Amino acid sequence: MKTKETHLEENTVSTQVKHLLSQMTLEEKVGQMTQIDFSMVGVFEAQDAKHPIDSEKLEEAVIKHHVGSILNCPSTPHNKAQPIETWRHMMQEVEGVSAKTRLKIPVIYGIDAIHGATYTKNAVLFPQAINMAATFNTELSFKEGEITAREVRASGQHWNFAPVMDIGRQPLWPRLWETYGEDVHLATAMGTAYIKGHQGDNFSEPTKVPTCLKHYVGYSFPINGKDRTPAWIGERMLREYFLPTFEAGVKAGSPTVMVNSAEVDGIPGHANYHYLTTILRDEMGFKGFVVSDWEDIKRLYTRDKLAASPKDAVKIAVMAGVDMSMVPFDFSFYGLLLELAQSGEVPMSRIDEAVRRILTVKYQAGLFEHDRKQLPVESNFATPEATAINRQAARESIILAKNSNQILPVKKEANILVTGPTADLLSVMNGGWTITWQGHAEELYPQDKLTVLKALQKKSLGKITYLNGDVRADEKAIDKVVAEAKHHDVVLLCLGEQPYTETVGNIETLALEPTQMELAEAAINTGKPVILLTLGGRPRIITSIANQAAGVILGFLPGMEGGEAIADIIYGDYNPDGKLPITYPRNTNGITLYDHKPMESFEGNVYNPLFPFGHGLSYTTFATDGLAVDKEQIKWDENVTVTVNVSNIGTRLGKETVLLYIHDVAASVTRPNKQLKAFQKVELEPGEAKKLSFTLSPYDLSFIGVDLKRVVEPGEFRVMVGNETANFWVTE
Amino acid sequence: MKTKETHLEENTVSTQVKHLLSQMTLEEKVGQMTQIDFSMVGVFEAQDAKHPIDSEKLEEAVIKHHVGSILNCPSTPHNKAQPIETWRHMMQEVEGVSAKTRLKIPVIYGIDAIHGATYTKNAVLFPQAINMAATFNTELSFKEGEITAREVRASGQHWNFAPVMDIGRQPLWPRLWETYGEDVHLATAMGTAYIKGHQGDNFSEPTKVPTCLKHYVGYSFPINGKDRTPAWIGERMLREYFLPTFEAGVKAGSPTVMVNSAEVDGIPGHANYHYLTTILRDEMGFKGFVVSDWEDIKRLYTRDKLAASPKDAVKIAVMAGVDMSMVPFDFSFYGLLLELAQSGEVPMSRIDEAVRRILTVKYQAGLFEHDRKQLPVESNFATPEATAINRQAARESIILAKNSNQILPVKKEANILVTGPTADLLSVMNGGWTITWQGHAEELYPQDKLTVLKALQKKSLGKITYLNGDVRADEKAIDKVVAEAKHHDVVLLCLGEQPYTETVGNIETLALEPTQMELAEAAINTGKPVILLTLGGRPRIITSIANQAAGVILGFLPGMEGGEAIADIIYGDYNPDGKLPITYPRNTNGITLYDHKPMESFEGNVYNPLFPFGHGLSYTTFATDGLAVDKEQIKWDENVTVTVNVSNIGTRLGKETVLLYIHDVAASVTRPNKQLKAFQKVELEPGEAKKLSFTLSPYDLSFIGVDLKRVVEPGEFRVMVGNETANFWVTE
Repeated sequence: MKTKETHLEENTVSTQVKHLLSQMTLEEKVGQMTQIDFSMVGVFEAQDAKHPIDSEKLEEAVIKHHVGSILNCPSTPHNKAQPIETWRHMMQEVEGVSAKTRLKIPVIYGIDAIHGATYTKNAVLFPQAINMAATFNTELSFKEGEITAREVRASGQHWNFAPVMDIGRQPLWPRLWETYGEDVHLATAMGTAYIKGHQGDNFSEPTKVPTCLKHYVGYSFPINGKDRTPAWIGERMLREYFLPTFEAGVKAGSPTVMVNSAEVDGIPGHANYHYLTTILRDEMGFKGFVVSDWEDIKRLYTRDKLAASPKDAVKIAVMAGVDMSMVPFDFSFYGLLLELAQSGEVPMSRIDEAVRRILTVKYQAGLFEHDRKQLPVESNFATPEATAINRQAARESIILAKNSNQILPVKKEANILVTGPTADLLSVMNGGWTITWQGHAEELYPQDKLTVLKALQKKSLGKITYLNGDVRADEKAIDKVVAEAKHHDVVLLCLGEQPYTETVGNIETLALEPTQMELAEAAINTGKPVILLTLGGRPRIITSIANQAAGVILGFLPGMEGGEAIADIIYGDYNPDGKLPITYPRNTNGITLYDHKPMESFEGNVYNPLFPFGHGLSYTTFATDGLAVDKEQIKWDENVTVTVNVSNIGTRLGKETVLLYIHDVAASVTRPNKQLKAFQKVELEPGEAKKLSFTLSPYDLSFIGVDLKRVVEPGEFRVMVGNETANFWVTE
Repeated sequence: MKTKETHLEENTVSTQVKHLLSQMTLEEKVGQMTQIDFSMVGVFEAQDAKHPIDSEKLEEAVIKHHVGSILNCPSTPHNKAQPIETWRHMMQEVEGVSAKTRLKIPVIYGIDAIHGATYTKNAVLFPQAINMAATFNTELSFKEGEITAREVRASGQHWNFAPVMDIGRQPLWPRLWETYGEDVHLATAMGTAYIKGHQGDNFSEPTKVPTCLKHYVGYSFPINGKDRTPAWIGERMLREYFLPTFEAGVKAGSPTVMVNSAEVDGIPGHANYHYLTTILRDEMGFKGFVVSDWEDIKRLYTRDKLAASPKDAVKIAVMAGVDMSMVPFDFSFYGLLLELAQSGEVPMSRIDEAVRRILTVKYQAGLFEHDRKQLPVESNFATPEATAINRQAARESIILAKNSNQILPVKKEANILVTGPTADLLSVMNGGWTITWQGHAEELYPQDKLTVLKALQKKSLGKITYLNGDVRADEKAIDKVVAEAKHHDVVLLCLGEQPYTETVGNIETLALEPTQMELAEAAINTGKPVILLTLGGRPRIITSIANQAAGVILGFLPGMEGGEAIADIIYGDYNPDGKLPITYPRNTNGITLYDHKPMESFEGNVYNPLFPFGHGLSYTTFATDGLAVDKEQIKWDENVTVTVNVSNIGTRLGKETVLLYIHDVAASVTRPNKQLKAFQKVELEPGEAKKLSFTLSPYDLSFIGVDLKRVVEPGEFRVMVGNETANFWVTE
């Protein structure tokens, strides 16, 4: 609901933008639509320079080419996080040059701060999105947004290319971990909480920063799993699974949207008028601006052959609805769009529309304010409070998947043999977009953060032995593990993936690499109890190991505090409460997700994942009962209230997420066997019980109908919590 | 082009149908739309009965319930092929009962004769469709159609549920082998040739039988690879990849269409008005009738929950455009549709339309003719001529994929150790729909047909030793193979799959089973040259074996003459000329097909299959050169002629398929890097050369545009044959 004040503010901004636009030359307008990489304004060896900006190049960009936006951080050959002082200095310089332009239009500086202020040294780096989803704790997502915005703002940056609102239904995709998992309701809840924390009610405030919804739309579902390859999504499934998170993000106030780098149903994201204009603008009412992804307008020519020339590519993208081009390495977009506007091939109305949107966001972000406050570093960057929240997020993001004979928690006196490639690295807990693009520069990671091994050593009262078990480095490595196992009570087998993102992370099998499988088999064959810990962005196939291990902990990418959080859980200093935000597959193919259609578990077809969506154990035991609906019959536009009791019938304090699913019993489009429509996370003392109440709205009961419109159909609905079900009827 | 005569004939049929329809009661009409399984009219132990039909049950079905169609063959618990005499007797009985009905409307008896007259003992059983596609020989497909129709007709059956016109782009799908592979042009060519052979110009002729296009549409592309699970196909890709073969089949005169058992974009095939009526009828102009697949109308209620009741399911399916229900185990459809028609929920106009279509096909098939000729068995069933054609089809369907140091052909004097689970079975060469539904009843296979092992033994002048190498039967099985290898010149390693079809064949990994991998590794480690032969319906992952084997032969499902054909190739009695009709993947995931989009081989993405589409070696060497186009510029509605020389520069007679690909250089929808648009197979003596000429039509240059309409766009086109390219321009 808009307040009166917001309306006033919008009107003021609108008047200011109108006035400014009327004074601008075509060149100045086209410049606003141009976004370039830092390297276009940086000194050659910018990466470790104290003053990485080349003032002449910066003036060339901002004054001569009227560039409206810069992104990324010092590079050569790759980006690397910079000290916060360097950032503040750089940003002052950028702001200084803006002030020298004819109309003093500020540059908006964007950054991929996807799990904290990635490119600022020592920033608080949170669990990645897949882990945040595993917390099922929207408050933590809100706080991540708050802290990230504060640290981005303290770094002087203006705009964050987050959150990823793509739905993670393709386990091979090397950016799965950047999503909030496979479920639309969960991703909507986590993503909008993040936006609200990040932007507050007004993202011009000193601790707030505008967000960017990415990657609109369908990017996350490449058929073959490789990044930037085609998705085949019919419009009904697009509207059912991929649009709702973006729609929610727009409603939550995110003022920018980044485009899908690949294609859906044969049309590249950057050329898709139907998605970028008809749906995003006309249907969703998005008022902000749309920015391309990296080099993607050019690629309509160089890669997709959709355009017959680079100029044609610019025309197609701008006319489809892209307002700003992440060019990023030259001024070609500026030059070509200028020609297109001069010849009338791109009408001035379209240029004005794009620039109006961009300037509006700049006004809304307070970038035009002369007295715009710079946050002090102290109390706003890497604070102990923020780190404590990060540690709690990491704890709640870790999933205890198996715990035979209560092998966990392990006594602190136990002697543990730690082995495997993910035991003693920070990078494997952080993944891509950490300090560098690919996140694997372990040597640049903060010295004071603990790996799993080091966190265990810190807490242990027994013996902790570490052998990496890497046969590629030492052909006797596995024999050594087997020999050492005898002298220990338990083996902690740390497997998984090294960091990656985008096409660099493409794989051709979900199977775990053979060397890790060999290590696992040898460890299991010792007869010692094995606890498997997996880290990494995707659910690699661990079935044969998990079946034989006594305990399984799924760590995914728990961030900078992940080592301590995992040690907390292993030793029982924290009672685990994370739940899987994806389906963990049993094998490399034939993967069926939790919200599958009835035909996927009918007769010859079985739904049989290794661990289902929502799975996650605790050191205590929770029970739900008494599921009830307040009405047995409702009209299609009414709410229904569902109540259920949850109790801690075990012996430890713990948190439980109660998941509420529905099933629409008969509908004109086949409906999933179950779909998550609500959840609540509660903390309960042993013996404590709470009655939870959930409200299901008409939206929760709706789906995309035969005519591609959202509809609630009369008929029977089933509500499911735990082992209980309750039914109600919807009438016209 | 329709001849005057055809028009006359159509008019006559139309008058007859109109007259008949006017005499029919509602019950008789609804009965015509009902198809039941043989078991509804069979004696309890029908499978081995000399007279499997229960006359009372038959009268109950045909006289009392006016049933219009019966399918399948004697069962309990499973179907089993019957002697041709039994079939002829059964069919006479069915025709006799039809003659006793009030209006003497004949029953149409349908059968799944997908690679020959499957359910008639000793029928000529051809290579399965994936193999027929590998021949790239449309004449062989035509002859398969001819022979199949003749044998079906000789068996007394009226209607064949073939060909499968689905496109095989999902390698996991357990019916991949029932398709003509991944390419639309190839599948269209093979499928329409089959229809023409099967139906001739007039399928009422004594050796002809009507066909059925299945499974309309999108059935073959389940996301997760499992049979009867959802496909996500946007309408553009549906029209680009999945509709064209059906459109071609309709144009080729196939009078019936069977429906997709699963769903596309959330709508089950049997409920999809848009596909079944708007596209199939209004756009494609299909005049025949649409039959459901097995039990699928019921499943709209029992499985898909699309319908709120079984009656609702009938209404939805009939109103979507299904004309006949393969019920198949009761008269429920009859009863429910009767009620729906009586209450007006299904209008009489829709009933009349469906019945008119069914009766028209019955007339066209000559079923109303009293003097309808019954073919003599002799000279029409399992003739030596037909078997010779089958053997040639098998030979041309086998792909020599690797031949290091000319390990192949093997000298007849060589001592060969044959091992592996597919060496000595006929079933593994035939697959599903052979004698029984699943095809694995090896004991029922004809005694005079040869397995690979027996065919080698027949030809060999050396020693042939066979060890199955199955460690599940004998834990020392692999050791024995290793020990024996020493005493042989070469190891023939026969791996692959056991027969299956439909959901029974679902798999959760493309990886080959571990026991076969172990056998392969042991065989390779002996140091003896290994020739890998794979049999089975899918490209299971053999990369590590293929990399180390000296030779690789991909056999897929070459049919009843497969053993002899493989021996012909191994010993060089036949020079192999098969080519892959699919992309053979390198690993379990990340699979990219040959006609991928540019983005799939751009920067971080690589196209790197184990063997590409079109791959296949010969014992001689072919070269192509002199690629030329007759015009450098054409109008969009003109043809272009492409010529190229092909020569046999090796030392043996052989056949070569010349493949012509095009690439549309810039288009408004991203175009594949290359797409097959023409091919010719020629036989050349050593030293012989031929100039081939290909005509590319506007259809070949067209694609499905942004507005979902087929379009030829002006601009540059590239033609590719072998290593040569030629360009031409299309103008408006």
